[in-house]
Amino acid sequence: MAGSKELPKYFEMIDEQIWLVEDDRQNLKLYYRVKEILANRQSPFQQVNIIDTYDFGRCLVLDGVMQTTELDGYIYNEMISHVPVVCHPNPKKVLVIGGGDCGVVNELAKYAELEQIDMVEIDRVVVEECLDKLTGIAGKAAEDKRINFLFEDGVKHVQNKKDFYDIAIVDSSDPIGPAVELFSEEFYFNLKNALKKDGLMVCQSQSPIFNKDILKKTRENLKKHFPLVITYKTVVPSYPGGMWSFTLASLKYHPAEANYRRLSSDTKFINRDIFQSSMHLPNFMIKDLGLD
Amino acid sequence: MAGSKELPKYFEMIDEQIWLVEDDRQNLKLYYRVKEILANRQSPFQQVNIIDTYDFGRCLVLDGVMQTTELDGYIYNEMISHVPVVCHPNPKKVLVIGGGDCGVVNELAKYAELEQIDMVEIDRVVVEECLDKLTGIAGKAAEDKRINFLFEDGVKHVQNKKDFYDIAIVDSSDPIGPAVELFSEEFYFNLKNALKKDGLMVCQSQSPIFNKDILKKTRENLKKHFPLVITYKTVVPSYPGGMWSFTLASLKYHPAEANYRRLSSDTKFINRDIFQSSMHLPNFMIKDLGLD
Repeated sequence: MAGSKELPKYFEMIDEQIWLVEDDRQNLKLYYRVKEILANRQSPFQQVNIIDTYDFGRCLVLDGVMQTTELDGYIYNEMISHVPVVCHPNPKKVLVIGGGDCGVVNELAKYAELEQIDMVEIDRVVVEECLDKLTGIAGKAAEDKRINFLFEDGVKHVQNKKDFYDIAIVDSSDPIGPAVELFSEEFYFNLKNALKKDGLMVCQSQSPIFNKDILKKTRENLKKHFPLVITYKTVVPSYPGGMWSFTLASLKYHPAEANYRRLSSDTKFINRDIFQSSMHLPNFMIKDLGLD
Repeated sequence: MAGSKELPKYFEMIDEQIWLVEDDRQNLKLYYRVKEILANRQSPFQQVNIIDTYDFGRCLVLDGVMQTTELDGYIYNEMISHVPVVCHPNPKKVLVIGGGDCGVVNELAKYAELEQIDMVEIDRVVVEECLDKLTGIAGKAAEDKRINFLFEDGVKHVQNKKDFYDIAIVDSSDPIGPAVELFSEEFYFNLKNALKKDGLMVCQSQSPIFNKDILKKTRENLKKHFPLVITYKTVVPSYPGGMWSFTLASLKYHPAEANYRRLSSDTKFINRDIFQSSMHLPNFMIKDLGLD
């Protein structure tokens, strides 16, 4: 593929090197030097590329936009997965919406107490390619019998489930196009009903620096249906904005009462201290979110 | 300036918009859309630009490389300044090496107990332009009589001071070219001698993801001269790598015994919780630094 002169859309040859040109934002363009394009498929939803890069290892790229990298994808995936599992004292059934790179289900599989992990991802092609070529993130998710890959619309899936899951993790893409419904109040209402009475959910709630309006709106929508809404943060080195927020909405359990001993030790980023300190917000977030 | 057809080096006109092209790294190029080039001067050391951007506010750019932005520069500046001040129970005299954007001295000026703040920066042009046009970061540093701007070589400055400072802050650029000596064992030895017997110092020790060798070497060099060496971390959204490390080396005081009540409340990022959690390192850093 690297020798081909016809490069896929979003890739350019500059000085005999292949570069991915990420040009979706109005005021910032990023050029990543590419070792090899390992996959190039057009799904019904998007152009799916797995690439090997010089600085970030293998990466998933959708419609020309970097989604996750082997260099640091584990940080995001650990923070969105391990935190809710540890916050729930006795989780058995987990729903993951999105997360096509399979990093989240791979993290969840580290917990023997989980019995059923339903992963609802609309784009089968993303999952196929990541399980095959992005194993630094997807691990051996394909082999775990507890993981059910459901290639359907997450919004419809939650409408049809009642009182079923202990935990739901919404690993959506940005709230543009197909993912916009995953940030709506109606979706959160249906998600609450898909949870058991003591269930909890986590969603990625965007950069607290660049997307503070989305974060605030997400919290407002969740507060209408969940008694406890807590935002936590992490660093995400290769994402624009560097810092990322997650919002946990719980029907019963509070993170302050989490049993840290349940935290898996098979992690590269999270540990007990990181778990606790992720809930400590900087002054500008405390102010922006009206928590002062 | 924006109307001129002759753009300075490192800037390009694309579709009638000015872009800063940051192309110093081998495997990543960044294009920032520029509203206006506010300053363009060639100093004896480098090309100095202050620009106004769409996404990051005003920024300092040296030889085409983004140094600090009004959007998030306060995070780095607060973390490198407030932590050492709070770790020392009774600081009076502080030395800052580098820090031409004047963000560090502006943070230090928030502490009434400091009597003398010597800022040693080799490039006068950077300081002049930042005090004039980057006031979102430099604040009113120019007006504070405790701050002495010394335009000289930091390496030579510490050779001539003995038993003088309570705190030294090394806010250097990357260890390439002129800043390389600021990462040497000899420099740390001289810096130790410039400190009082109970003094402490902090240096920026690069990205724990992209520059882990520099971080490790920095710690090794410091350990030869200081009994207590502690690395802490922060997020730096607009820096490559997103996460940044600082290393504190102390002759007497331990951060665990810091009096948090002394922490200034005039901050946008740091607070007591952030101070404490900055010392909590993720698993990969604990492993890389041999702290496990």
